Amino acid sequence: MSSLRDDDQSFMNRALQLAEQGRGHVEPNPMVGCVIVKEGQVIGEGYHEKFGGPHAERNALANCGSASLEGSTVYVTLEPCCHHGKTPPCTDALLAAKPARVVVAMQDPFPKVQGGGLQILSAAGIEVNVGVCGKEAERINAPYLKRQRQGKPWIIAKWAMTLDGKLATANGSSKWISSEEARAEVHRIRGWCDGVMVGSGTAKLDDPLLTTRPPGPRTAARIIFDSQASLNESSRVIETIDQAPVIVAASTSARSERLERLQHAGCDLILCEGNDHASRLDALLIELANRGMTNILVEGGSQLLGLMWDERQINEVFSFIAPKIAGGRDAISPIGGQGIRNMEDATPLAETEIRSFGNTICLHGFTGF
Amino acid sequence: MSSLRDDDQSFMNRALQLAEQGRGHVEPNPMVGCVIVKEGQVIGEGYHEKFGGPHAERNALANCGSASLEGSTVYVTLEPCCHHGKTPPCTDALLAAKPARVVVAMQDPFPKVQGGGLQILSAAGIEVNVGVCGKEAERINAPYLKRQRQGKPWIIAKWAMTLDGKLATANGSSKWISSEEARAEVHRIRGWCDGVMVGSGTAKLDDPLLTTRPPGPRTAARIIFDSQASLNESSRVIETIDQAPVIVAASTSARSERLERLQHAGCDLILCEGNDHASRLDALLIELANRGMTNILVEGGSQLLGLMWDERQINEVFSFIAPKIAGGRDAISPIGGQGIRNMEDATPLAETEIRSFGNTICLHGFTGF
Repeated sequence: MSSLRDDDQSFMNRALQLAEQGRGHVEPNPMVGCVIVKEGQVIGEGYHEKFGGPHAERNALANCGSASLEGSTVYVTLEPCCHHGKTPPCTDALLAAKPARVVVAMQDPFPKVQGGGLQILSAAGIEVNVGVCGKEAERINAPYLKRQRQGKPWIIAKWAMTLDGKLATANGSSKWISSEEARAEVHRIRGWCDGVMVGSGTAKLDDPLLTTRPPGPRTAARIIFDSQASLNESSRVIETIDQAPVIVAASTSARSERLERLQHAGCDLILCEGNDHASRLDALLIELANRGMTNILVEGGSQLLGLMWDERQINEVFSFIAPKIAGGRDAISPIGGQGIRNMEDATPLAETEIRSFGNTICLHGFTGF
Repeated sequence: MSSLRDDDQSFMNRALQLAEQGRGHVEPNPMVGCVIVKEGQVIGEGYHEKFGGPHAERNALANCGSASLEGSTVYVTLEPCCHHGKTPPCTDALLAAKPARVVVAMQDPFPKVQGGGLQILSAAGIEVNVGVCGKEAERINAPYLKRQRQGKPWIIAKWAMTLDGKLATANGSSKWISSEEARAEVHRIRGWCDGVMVGSGTAKLDDPLLTTRPPGPRTAARIIFDSQASLNESSRVIETIDQAPVIVAASTSARSERLERLQHAGCDLILCEGNDHASRLDALLIELANRGMTNILVEGGSQLLGLMWDERQINEVFSFIAPKIAGGRDAISPIGGQGIRNMEDATPLAETEIRSFGNTICLHGFTGF
């Protein structure tokens, strides 16, 4: 049994690697990978490659060619679907192929699945194991899972700061803190996100483009959290509105003249109910999830990141740290907001990794929210 | 010639390694290493081991035993001394040993040497080369050189911050940001410094011990930059005054009653002239250098580090970064002070190195000041 379990993990890890290749292509679907093994040999593998395209199981089955699945084991990173969506149920395909065993990393919380796929396979006499590499599967699809479970997109916070913790000087100057290589990495991340968000202050002060250069697998909408609808019509995001959508998230009480001008300039308006930033942010995130957005990269400024932090919405962090010093008691630090009172209440990041991009290091991790 | 030069660097690197072993033992003398090579073989090596003890050259010569130095090359990381100090001139010993060649990494700026040692050797017909690994030699003795050239001690700034650049929360809470392993590294650094300095605010708020645990090669004086002489007599530095000296750097205009109390409690008072923090800091640093102090570790708070930064006195930086997030626009960042106006004027650190201490990373580098 114990050597069998070792094999299970290694095949499931391969399936997870395959799944990862769908990042940026499959959302709002989950990333899923599948490996089919017979007598210790992989006879087929596949992954969900593109939203609307065949699921991982069907791609892996097709990859087996004419080989019989008798006595085989199918490793799949997420419970096979049992409903008609864009494609017919994967459980049908598996029942037809008749493997001896299906090993699943985790159940799918999607309301039309939720264990139903596993039941169908079990009932047909297929041995079903759940939970192999479950933690890794939860990690890779954490954005999908947050959207399913909480109805909000996964929030990735990104900032660049000096070695003494400054996002910008007191007068807002921030160009450029990090290396060219680090900025290229940010564009790579944008390339698989559904949206890139900044606050109205950053939009005004930095007048950023927020496009992805070079383009990635998906085009991130540029989202401005802008209660007063103050975005300038001559801003660079609007000038380049043909390159990627611009969403202005304004308060329902923003001046209608401002709203009309932005709408006329081609912006997509989301009017957020609520009397404070926190409730408007809540409304915005729900609306973005309803629009099918899974991953939102929040790039600042300090005020928006602080609000996101206080509301416990930041799930993943990329902190780029450049080996330079600015100084200044009035300089701006990456995360504003209320913050914590006691240092012992600081939130430790999990699964932290350090990478170097030129002279800049990047510490990446997860908040656990 | 070119293979000879390669050899030169490798023997000088060995001499630099030897020199490094004197750290914390030899100050305010420079660290010096020496390697003696004959026919491509090392026949003796040594370093300056202890303040007041024999210099590197004499230790290396002694290490040669009865071997003749005829035709040999002596590698030494700093120009041999030519004056009577605590020990007789090293040039005398070299002239007696008669090597064919002396290779020196750099001249000694010490007023009684300054090229005089090299001249004596040259005049005696010994081939003299200067500058092999000169940059590395300047680096290892940068603290000695700053004290010689500027009459001020070398300032090492150390702080621990969260991944979002916070030294403490808005109410000053800061325990503990970094890992136990990182704190152990700080004690290791304290162990070779002449002084550990904090501002009066940090002394009041954190009431730190500032002793070195376990002890290192030297005992750092605990220096409080405390213009108003406000240090509490029941503070832990004073309670433990038998373990390491406490220096209170107060303004000449501090209340005499306060000064008397602190003196009575056993503190060493340095009265600093000047109408502002910057001029008092200047006076303090000159006085510390006059007392023979070479390395001062400044551990905060934000205000003192900011002052040091604005005055361009910070030479070396250890920034400990813990993978946790605090948030808070009013939280405190490591370096206060005026800071810079434009981010492009941030000071890049040179020779940066990253190390991990448990979950905490440490970025180390030099400011070039």
